Amino acid sequence: MTEPFDAVEVIAAKRDGRALDTARIRWLVDAFTRGVVADEQMSAWAMAVVLNGMDRREIRDLTLAMIDSGERMSFADLAKPTVDKHSTGGVGDKITLPLAPLVASFGVAVPQLSGRGLGHTGGTLDKLESIPGWRADLTTAELRAQLADVGAAICAAGADLAPADKRLYALRDTTGTVEAIPLIASSIMSKKIAEGTGALVLDVKFGSGAFLPERERAEELARTMVALGGDAGVATVALLTDMSVPLGLTAGNAIEVEESVEVLAGGGPSDVRELTVALAAEMLALAGRDGEDPAAALDDGRAMDAWRRMIRAQGGDPDAPLPVARESHPVLAEADGVLAEQDARAVGVAAWRLGAGRARQGDPVQHGAGVRLHAKPGDVVRAGQPLVTLLTDEPDRFPRAIDALEGALVVAPAGTAVPSRDLIAARIA
Amino acid sequence: MTEPFDAVEVIAAKRDGRALDTARIRWLVDAFTRGVVADEQMSAWAMAVVLNGMDRREIRDLTLAMIDSGERMSFADLAKPTVDKHSTGGVGDKITLPLAPLVASFGVAVPQLSGRGLGHTGGTLDKLESIPGWRADLTTAELRAQLADVGAAICAAGADLAPADKRLYALRDTTGTVEAIPLIASSIMSKKIAEGTGALVLDVKFGSGAFLPERERAEELARTMVALGGDAGVATVALLTDMSVPLGLTAGNAIEVEESVEVLAGGGPSDVRELTVALAAEMLALAGRDGEDPAAALDDGRAMDAWRRMIRAQGGDPDAPLPVARESHPVLAEADGVLAEQDARAVGVAAWRLGAGRARQGDPVQHGAGVRLHAKPGDVVRAGQPLVTLLTDEPDRFPRAIDALEGALVVAPAGTAVPSRDLIAARIA
Repeated sequence: MTEPFDAVEVIAAKRDGRALDTARIRWLVDAFTRGVVADEQMSAWAMAVVLNGMDRREIRDLTLAMIDSGERMSFADLAKPTVDKHSTGGVGDKITLPLAPLVASFGVAVPQLSGRGLGHTGGTLDKLESIPGWRADLTTAELRAQLADVGAAICAAGADLAPADKRLYALRDTTGTVEAIPLIASSIMSKKIAEGTGALVLDVKFGSGAFLPERERAEELARTMVALGGDAGVATVALLTDMSVPLGLTAGNAIEVEESVEVLAGGGPSDVRELTVALAAEMLALAGRDGEDPAAALDDGRAMDAWRRMIRAQGGDPDAPLPVARESHPVLAEADGVLAEQDARAVGVAAWRLGAGRARQGDPVQHGAGVRLHAKPGDVVRAGQPLVTLLTDEPDRFPRAIDALEGALVVAPAGTAVPSRDLIAARIA
Repeated sequence: MTEPFDAVEVIAAKRDGRALDTARIRWLVDAFTRGVVADEQMSAWAMAVVLNGMDRREIRDLTLAMIDSGERMSFADLAKPTVDKHSTGGVGDKITLPLAPLVASFGVAVPQLSGRGLGHTGGTLDKLESIPGWRADLTTAELRAQLADVGAAICAAGADLAPADKRLYALRDTTGTVEAIPLIASSIMSKKIAEGTGALVLDVKFGSGAFLPERERAEELARTMVALGGDAGVATVALLTDMSVPLGLTAGNAIEVEESVEVLAGGGPSDVRELTVALAAEMLALAGRDGEDPAAALDDGRAMDAWRRMIRAQGGDPDAPLPVARESHPVLAEADGVLAEQDARAVGVAAWRLGAGRARQGDPVQHGAGVRLHAKPGDVVRAGQPLVTLLTDEPDRFPRAIDALEGALVVAPAGTAVPSRDLIAARIA
């Protein structure tokens, strides 16, 4: 078959800072999927995008081309509205776990297609897999049935959703071309739009534990994705949230499930509850349930009921004991004072090194590993009390986890004023 | 084996505009040669270099790393000085053919390792292969013997010279990463330094038929290469020369050999002779023969004798008739006037489309194909006279060659002043 365009010409245009027309972008993605455009060509193009950017029309074309590389699901035949949430990822970010059943408890379908973790931020599926019996893989028919019945499903995305994005993402990961807003935005939105959700709430994080630590860049990413959703007819709202400290008091797998269940029982750390309720309110509003009070459903057990049904529907036992790490190591405060800093990235890297995350795709994770936090910034601490507890099955992992925390947990003299941060910094719609 | 660096970290540093240290550059080239750094990683890095550049120390490190990827020849044991010439390539650029024997006729060794053409500029080996019996491949022992005896050898570079450069060049060709001065300069200079020449004269071209049409960029490339030569102990001088019109009156293979022989006989087009003499004077000066007069050796037959010995040493018959194209097609002047423009790139593309060049590596070329020019800018022309004659074995190639010349041969009204150009615009040492 004769190709309508030449890969070198398309790469050179982006290299020289020109916008690519719709036909060239669609061809590039299609030819890459067919293997006509080689990996080394696509990575050179991706680097040119990292350095020269894309305009909004190009990003939209790229997103649509990636959607069209695979199948597009539709839940239009469900008797309820669908709404999904996506987080750009953070340390201790277990929000999807209480959020999906909470929103489902109001009669809204939440088809939460999620991923596994790579690097210092954990993966939702890794966390849920610490529940005995629970399985991430659902067929499309099983997913549909569960949405109709339980309302919430958290499962792995099938290989047929935006396969071009999967190939491009794997390539970007090894070629230093992850950090480009056009590529990040089109990657996230192509999967979410292909998934067929009716509306979407984005949790875009900034701060040391986030993918894009600078607030300005995170905000640009949020605006780009909200615009892409609108262009595709998927009502999209983003919350810009602070990820300079971990969410809640746990970063790991089973320990994050445990904390999620606390929130579903009406308790849990205040920041996890606050963000869960705020995101639920946005999702319910997009689903046409403006008047509902999500906090009430956490307090009266409706969310917990939905959680138990969701876990059971995927083979899990919500009452089974969760795996516990075989070894623990406390990191102690050296002086009395007030916890002034608790760096999210450092805590994430420590949890990862303890075995909660994986270094390579396909590696197993330890269900019990992670970091338990015993204080949050602003809390008074005493010399000798544990600031965090490190958890792993393999004690030879402790030294490198302790290294990761070097300088990350700062105790200031008693009485030092620690400025409080707004967890939710902005709403972008 | 554990690698000392991570490819993604090295790529990201260049992506973010940082200079790479010597150890990282050496590792990158070595790991690429070993296949540890993959093509898609190297092409992303190359695109980052195209867009973010390299400083002089990085370019030197890259050049040395590419030299060290293979063997390094030495002609230090020859009883005469060695000096080589490299041209960045142009249309009708047959200068190597008369130049190498001319310089050798003064008792200087000229180990001229050359390439085949790809694209609109021809290759020196392709031109010489139109001589019946001549062969481009010499063993190192044959090359040494020929340099000791005849003094001049024009032959193919062996696979052991800078193999990392060969791999990187092939990759750049398909990924839109050719046009970066650090990559061009290190590619050329790594081969020339590895080849073991004692001194080097560069012909760096600008104008439409050149690789880098902008004079400022060509000059930057020349300065970069002269500095690299100096750093490596190879005395290097560059002439910056005009390639906005073709050199001489022929662009092709056999027809360029024919014109070269005219120059070796003391005649030929004045521009070809001028540049041959100027480059020879630079080469002789670098070889310690400052007082010599190269023009005299063209006029008195010494250069022609050296040519005949050089061609015979490589199996060629200097007296054999050269191949002639089976078909010819004149392009006629439509009005009386003066030839105002003769675009080098257009003529080069026409010759290429007629079969003088190749579209893919490994394709054969037609020995007789090319473009014969009947006037140079400033010459008076009459309506109906041929401006150029197109030559090929395959007449179905004429229409696309004629297309290439569209607008490229401009006849202005009689009396129009056509500004003359300096062929040699600058000398950089």
